[in-house]
Amino acid sequence: MTFATPVRDMRFTLDHMAGFGGLEGGAFPELSDDLTSAILEELGKYCDNVVAPLNWGSDQDGAVLENGVVRTSPGFQDAYRQYVEGGWGSLAFPEDVGGQGLPSTLAVALVDALNAACMSFAIGTTLTTGAVKTILHAGTDEQKRLYLPKLVSGEWTGTMNLTEPQAGSDLSGVRAKAEPQGDGTYKISGQKIYITYGDHDIADNIIHLVLARLPDAPEGTAGISMFLVPKVHVAADGSLEGRNDVAAVGLEEKMGLHGSPTCVMAYGERGECVGTLLGQEHKGLKNMFVMMNSARLDVGVQGVGVAERGYQRALAYALERRQGRAPGVKSGPQVEIFKHADVRRMLYSMKAMVEASRAICYANAVSYDLARYAADDAVRTRSKSVEELLTPISKAWSTDRANDVTSLGVQVHGGMGYVEETGAAQHMRDARIAAIYEGTNGIQAIDLVGRKLQGDGGAAAKAFVEEARAEAAAAKDAGTPELSLVAARLSRATDALEASTDWLLEAAKRDQHDVLAGATPYLKQFGNVAGGVYLARGARAAAKAMGEAGADAAYLSGKVAIARFFADNFLTEAAGLTEAVTAGADAVQELDPAVLTA
Amino acid sequence: MTFATPVRDMRFTLDHMAGFGGLEGGAFPELSDDLTSAILEELGKYCDNVVAPLNWGSDQDGAVLENGVVRTSPGFQDAYRQYVEGGWGSLAFPEDVGGQGLPSTLAVALVDALNAACMSFAIGTTLTTGAVKTILHAGTDEQKRLYLPKLVSGEWTGTMNLTEPQAGSDLSGVRAKAEPQGDGTYKISGQKIYITYGDHDIADNIIHLVLARLPDAPEGTAGISMFLVPKVHVAADGSLEGRNDVAAVGLEEKMGLHGSPTCVMAYGERGECVGTLLGQEHKGLKNMFVMMNSARLDVGVQGVGVAERGYQRALAYALERRQGRAPGVKSGPQVEIFKHADVRRMLYSMKAMVEASRAICYANAVSYDLARYAADDAVRTRSKSVEELLTPISKAWSTDRANDVTSLGVQVHGGMGYVEETGAAQHMRDARIAAIYEGTNGIQAIDLVGRKLQGDGGAAAKAFVEEARAEAAAAKDAGTPELSLVAARLSRATDALEASTDWLLEAAKRDQHDVLAGATPYLKQFGNVAGGVYLARGARAAAKAMGEAGADAAYLSGKVAIARFFADNFLTEAAGLTEAVTAGADAVQELDPAVLTA
Repeated sequence: MTFATPVRDMRFTLDHMAGFGGLEGGAFPELSDDLTSAILEELGKYCDNVVAPLNWGSDQDGAVLENGVVRTSPGFQDAYRQYVEGGWGSLAFPEDVGGQGLPSTLAVALVDALNAACMSFAIGTTLTTGAVKTILHAGTDEQKRLYLPKLVSGEWTGTMNLTEPQAGSDLSGVRAKAEPQGDGTYKISGQKIYITYGDHDIADNIIHLVLARLPDAPEGTAGISMFLVPKVHVAADGSLEGRNDVAAVGLEEKMGLHGSPTCVMAYGERGECVGTLLGQEHKGLKNMFVMMNSARLDVGVQGVGVAERGYQRALAYALERRQGRAPGVKSGPQVEIFKHADVRRMLYSMKAMVEASRAICYANAVSYDLARYAADDAVRTRSKSVEELLTPISKAWSTDRANDVTSLGVQVHGGMGYVEETGAAQHMRDARIAAIYEGTNGIQAIDLVGRKLQGDGGAAAKAFVEEARAEAAAAKDAGTPELSLVAARLSRATDALEASTDWLLEAAKRDQHDVLAGATPYLKQFGNVAGGVYLARGARAAAKAMGEAGADAAYLSGKVAIARFFADNFLTEAAGLTEAVTAGADAVQELDPAVLTA
Repeated sequence: MTFATPVRDMRFTLDHMAGFGGLEGGAFPELSDDLTSAILEELGKYCDNVVAPLNWGSDQDGAVLENGVVRTSPGFQDAYRQYVEGGWGSLAFPEDVGGQGLPSTLAVALVDALNAACMSFAIGTTLTTGAVKTILHAGTDEQKRLYLPKLVSGEWTGTMNLTEPQAGSDLSGVRAKAEPQGDGTYKISGQKIYITYGDHDIADNIIHLVLARLPDAPEGTAGISMFLVPKVHVAADGSLEGRNDVAAVGLEEKMGLHGSPTCVMAYGERGECVGTLLGQEHKGLKNMFVMMNSARLDVGVQGVGVAERGYQRALAYALERRQGRAPGVKSGPQVEIFKHADVRRMLYSMKAMVEASRAICYANAVSYDLARYAADDAVRTRSKSVEELLTPISKAWSTDRANDVTSLGVQVHGGMGYVEETGAAQHMRDARIAAIYEGTNGIQAIDLVGRKLQGDGGAAAKAFVEEARAEAAAAKDAGTPELSLVAARLSRATDALEASTDWLLEAAKRDQHDVLAGATPYLKQFGNVAGGVYLARGARAAAKAMGEAGADAAYLSGKVAIARFFADNFLTEAAGLTEAVTAGADAVQELDPAVLTA
């Protein structure tokens, strides 16, 4: 199957749903329509021609660990070299560290396209982004000087080393150690698991950011520090000078993402692993959240990308495979299965979820940029709260939907979907991790109902409810039958979201158990409404543009049709979800476990 | 992980949800509580000790094709020998062909337990059941004499050969040929794909039921005949006398179910494949529906079984894995993740889906038995219509839920779930086929809104709506707060189902496209309501039994809690689904395909 980066949809989402135009000028004086187009077109070429062809091979011929060294899938080295040469990694980093100073939103579009092309290749680059942001945030001048330029250019890559067997979602159990050597360096020791691209052969050095405990560290998360541990030592002049005592000692055999080496990392097996403190002692978790917040949005976008790929494959199959005939027609040639309403329902569902999750993530990215670079204080403040609110939704809703979309992609293929050769199954297997890593989707939901909802007394959530109401009103005013329908559904769904929000805020005063029991359906409901808001906005823009000279009416009518489908099938879930949100802790009471078996 | 057949839940479902007691006496004079208990206990021992231990190995070391012969996974031969010796295959077949004359419902319980233990092993036995039913229905006396005893005992196995590359969901394109030889036999030629257990080494002979066309056959499905083609020729005295010209020429590499050989079968490559006509010329599809209807319920039950396995594994992990603490608790030992409300929500969801799908399938099985064996004409007629109505729901709803449950099982494990070694991923990969084969779930939905709903002008569906109302009234009368809540939710969901049903029946007079566009959400809605009905019934029985002497109050309160959870989270979906059902064909209009890409 030929993959094509959905440049046009990406652009439509940026411009007509996510408010990307708000970033032009100000902190991004060079940003323009033409520049954005040029970047997306180039990105499309790179992804379509260089990265996408590697996807299937990376599943069949995944990363391997041989003699202590990880060898990546065929073609990864060359594709990564082109990634570095193309300057893709440096797109959104500040110019003073070698970046191109463009909005992070464009880097998010890059993550989207790259993950659609080959998720297991793309994920390696994402970790580097997190490392750069963390070093920018917490690094000393020396650390910045030594490590940032090469990480920004992508000549070196970064990793995140958090998890240990007993310390996963709860990092308070981290046991890795750091002993000060008196010269400003630390001896690091311990084992870390699930380290994405912990070792590989696509770059000359790997900069590991490692959570560990100092000898005097308090227990729990208040005693975790972060260390910068290079795979190869870097001399003061920036040259490489011999291996550090860190190695991949195992690779996980995973359900998917075979091209991404998931390493067990051993630090200091010979007692000679040297690192430097990154940020303050015992404040490692603060850094981690810098890395993690950026990664959470990126993981949401991974979901968008892999879902897009699954959708494109299913659509292509449905347009080619012939089975059956129209209702009532008994003979004559069989028709493409795309002609069957039930198959189209699957494709519409997939497309609707891809578009909605892309819009949520892009809007999240725009709010990230505005929160940092908007000229107006009030805009920065408001955008910051939107960014924080949307991050768990981007991560969890998009990746839950990626599971749905890629599973539907298998379904559209019928029996062929279950056969690996077809490729649909790979997308489903690859996608499945995204709902788990960077904080499981359950943890995202808890973040939403906890820090995000209660942190500001519900202000950000309420503001979003108002935005949804305004969008419903605008859609109603647009006056077309489809938009009126969308408006009505959005309005009801927004009422339901508000009811959930009010209930949770009340419950929070009473008992956090009630809040936590409703976290997951609340996140789903929020995502459904947010998706509905952005798709309605896009549909309004499409309906308006349809009347303009030279408009591509067919393309634009597709945006309206998808918004309507989303309203009929996803916004209508919202009312029922309020009942699930507000059932309270009693509804998942802690029964005797034996009761739940038989 | 130790697997335990859920004997107690199976029994509870039979007795208190599915109406199994209605089968005692009458056509099953020997059936009694004690006999049922003895059978389920024995079944549990066989599945727990013999079959379940093979599951993981069958994934890692699946079936292989070597020198034209399929070798099954380690242990399959011995486990199958014990299956035959235990008489498991013959449980529900008539005594005059060597069966035990017990209700099919018990065979369905067998399918449940066997698939929970090892789905890829279990599926081989299911196909034999279909072959026996088809030969019973359509075979000549000679065919019955020669083939039935060995198939009933399980000494030989059966297959279903429908699919060819160009003929999947639509069999009108079948091209395999049958040439009459003038001696009552036929030369068969052609290739079939996706043939489950098309070849293997667990039994001495394989009886293939093959769809093919006679030379004078009309085009389309009206020209398809069915042939009985043994792997090894059977002499008139029943002895084996040399290989027929049929062989497995390929094995599919699948996403899961690696232990089940999915064969490409070549018939008559040397022009010497001999078979006999099964049933009437050109009426092969009629036979196929006999085989298929039995298989559809069995596939639904496969979903129940594999979901049960996924649930048990996740529960065990959640009771053991420690991460985090209760809200507000900052230090002290970490708690089992089962203690977290959000994790319990996942486990409750899984358990609720397992119980609801089991109840639907068992109720379907009881209606199958009553339709054939009830003494009262009216009961037989009514049961037949319930059986037909429930079959597509059993198949599709249960297998959709199996996908949900096994995916949640991965999620409960966090990162460990994505690592194959844990075993959770296998259940998800194995389960994924069940929504596809024996008629995709989309085809089940079309069957529901077509033959099942319109075939009797909505009578069966309306009768079910009345049953749901009666159950809601009874739950309300039970007077406990939980049951009142369940009753209210069930009542509203039933209204929604009735509204969908009425709309579809009206739409059918107007335009089948409108009906077909709503098929899938209608099936989901119907399954949600049916699950709610049976769980409410079980909860009522549990609430009543709780007051009795010696009652296991903890176990019984679990039934109430699950029914309530299902009501809060699944019955509440029903109202929104009506909006999806009734959106009409326009909501999935046939856009220019180019519109849906970008």
